[in-house]
Amino acid sequence: MWDRLITDCHVATMVPQPGNPLGLFPNAAIGIDGGRIVRVGKRTELAGFRAKEVVALGGAWVTPGLVDCHTHLVFGGTRAAEHAMRRAGASYAEIAGAGGGIASTVAATKAAGSDELRDQSRRRLQALMAGGVTTVEIKSGYGLDTASEMRMLNTAIAIGRDQPVRIVPTLLAAHALPPGADRDVYVKMIVDEMIPTVAKARLATSVDAFCESIAFTPAEVERVFTAARANGLPVRLHAEQLSNQNGAALAAKYKALSAYHLEHLDAAGAKAMAAAGTVAVLLPGAFYALQETRKPPVQMLRDAGVPIAIATDCNPGTSPLLNPQLAMNMACTLFGLTPEEAIAGMTINAARALGLAHDIGSIEAGKAADLCAWRVDDLSELGYWIGMPGPERRIFGGMDNQRGGE
Amino acid sequence: MWDRLITDCHVATMVPQPGNPLGLFPNAAIGIDGGRIVRVGKRTELAGFRAKEVVALGGAWVTPGLVDCHTHLVFGGTRAAEHAMRRAGASYAEIAGAGGGIASTVAATKAAGSDELRDQSRRRLQALMAGGVTTVEIKSGYGLDTASEMRMLNTAIAIGRDQPVRIVPTLLAAHALPPGADRDVYVKMIVDEMIPTVAKARLATSVDAFCESIAFTPAEVERVFTAARANGLPVRLHAEQLSNQNGAALAAKYKALSAYHLEHLDAAGAKAMAAAGTVAVLLPGAFYALQETRKPPVQMLRDAGVPIAIATDCNPGTSPLLNPQLAMNMACTLFGLTPEEAIAGMTINAARALGLAHDIGSIEAGKAADLCAWRVDDLSELGYWIGMPGPERRIFGGMDNQRGGE
Repeated sequence: MWDRLITDCHVATMVPQPGNPLGLFPNAAIGIDGGRIVRVGKRTELAGFRAKEVVALGGAWVTPGLVDCHTHLVFGGTRAAEHAMRRAGASYAEIAGAGGGIASTVAATKAAGSDELRDQSRRRLQALMAGGVTTVEIKSGYGLDTASEMRMLNTAIAIGRDQPVRIVPTLLAAHALPPGADRDVYVKMIVDEMIPTVAKARLATSVDAFCESIAFTPAEVERVFTAARANGLPVRLHAEQLSNQNGAALAAKYKALSAYHLEHLDAAGAKAMAAAGTVAVLLPGAFYALQETRKPPVQMLRDAGVPIAIATDCNPGTSPLLNPQLAMNMACTLFGLTPEEAIAGMTINAARALGLAHDIGSIEAGKAADLCAWRVDDLSELGYWIGMPGPERRIFGGMDNQRGGE
Repeated sequence: MWDRLITDCHVATMVPQPGNPLGLFPNAAIGIDGGRIVRVGKRTELAGFRAKEVVALGGAWVTPGLVDCHTHLVFGGTRAAEHAMRRAGASYAEIAGAGGGIASTVAATKAAGSDELRDQSRRRLQALMAGGVTTVEIKSGYGLDTASEMRMLNTAIAIGRDQPVRIVPTLLAAHALPPGADRDVYVKMIVDEMIPTVAKARLATSVDAFCESIAFTPAEVERVFTAARANGLPVRLHAEQLSNQNGAALAAKYKALSAYHLEHLDAAGAKAMAAAGTVAVLLPGAFYALQETRKPPVQMLRDAGVPIAIATDCNPGTSPLLNPQLAMNMACTLFGLTPEEAIAGMTINAARALGLAHDIGSIEAGKAADLCAWRVDDLSELGYWIGMPGPERRIFGGMDNQRGGE
């Protein structure tokens, strides 16, 4: 006897079939036991199975729970003042040069009390959960010293505790150079101290870096990546956001799980990513908020066969975005993705970007029973509506959670 | 003894003071009786008054309930397929020419059963309510014959019944020419039949029209406006969205409450609007969804002294936008409004656009007690976040309604 039988629904399994990229399965049912999917099949086929509870969804469309594979949602303060600067014409690089940008959030995060930091961050997490997110990656990177980075990772883990959500914490010490710090000394601290400490304490499951003219050079990123690999942690990279630094090729060289932004990616970078299995994570919220004009080369990624994921990039400076469906809509509206690509981008490909595709991101026997039931006639509406309030039902580990953790 | 005393909050009264355009009142309290605001003052000043219930908001910021002064949220079907056409490069005018656009929603609305139309529309209304909307204007215009337009207006009124929200229904029969109809015959039907019937049945409180090369000419709009005025109904106009038709000046000539879109407005039009007291309603959702490049002339409106409102324009074709805060963020991000202008645009100026500024849109003694309590440090965050889930508390007619009508 199963725990639950979800029935009277249509399912996007996200297991592609010929001519059916989302693996759509109309009139389906899903068996759940012990928090895992045990069977997906025709409604009539599964009608004979017994379950402690039968849940009829009244014809809703079911997708995997959404995976937000790139956020910086633990932070203190906001950066509302920078938005005024940007409206007045200042570029992101100019704001960073004027002491704004990441440095101002580092200061605000340090200044925030532990309760304040936790409560503010949890509210953002709950907004994403209400939008259908069941797995969320959260980066450090507003600490920039060992204790402060660990505090951020501990906060990221703490806000998910006792909540129906999976948190994936990432060490992003190489996010910005601390004000006044010596470049070499700081990178050495990341390599010799932060990465080993965080790896030992199991506070992060991967290491990220920001390769950019206003952040770290490719050579510095290589030192960070080498240390990460030596400590058993896979890597990820913010690459080619504002300029082409050959970050994608660097990411591929270190078999990065994913590379982000990629507005300035070239064909060689795309080819290297495809060969390494590195997922391209597109972040349309930052493109929108910064009013950028250079779009990531979506067709180049398709042609090269690079899997495309989408994330909110929820952060105080360049993407204060709190709605995962809106990230999908922006990917379609701003970058020209199809709704099918957008849905794959926040489910199976986002799971790949986190190295978790064995466990989440599709509706298959053996995977976690993380599901969203959407009250839509057609799943393409997930790319169509602008700021939908979220799924009608949200199921995490087989259990219902309509309200996103409230 | 009052019904309620709202205390421990900061209030944006929306009554401008020198150097304080939002009339911000920190450490304030609000007395409510019989669904109306009876007093706003310092917390300490109001502490002596007695109320049946005291509500402490823990330092939240309180604004008037949001006013969404331009929507088309009653419709059947979606227009997700057009989005694919648009991504492939088709313009709005080309889609309309190919039988898509408004005509396709007219067909889908006619085809929808009454329950279906009501349930779908109510879900959209509830999304806006969850976002903090307490007053929402809803237009007809997907009927295009007398019975179908009346059905739309009746549906708009029905979905607000027994819900904590104020519906403002508008007759927009001059939205598009019905397929195959004779222009003159259709306009005559609006003038001789629809407007008198709707006015008599009190199904709408104003008359709207779409003045555009793909819709109605200025001369046709004049016939509609003359009939509206003769039947005691004020007018509004969709003007200068895709081209300059001198619609703003026409709107002003008929003392229109508001004119919408205005991307192609010129200085003469702005001056005429200012003189007539016509509110400019900016619709950034349509600008975003259509990926337009010509922005409305915000500085020209400021210079001319035209009040600026913002609305979601919630509609299936050009703005399937379901989050009022996102409309404010888009107005800042895409059109360069300040957060203060965006907040005024969805409160007091939106109330003006509906001719309801005597009753709603600000927090003053005598007005309806429609309030939103926002968990933010600074009200500028209403322009900053991208897709906030909605206010922490929503009060309509003095009564709490956190859940937006669920």
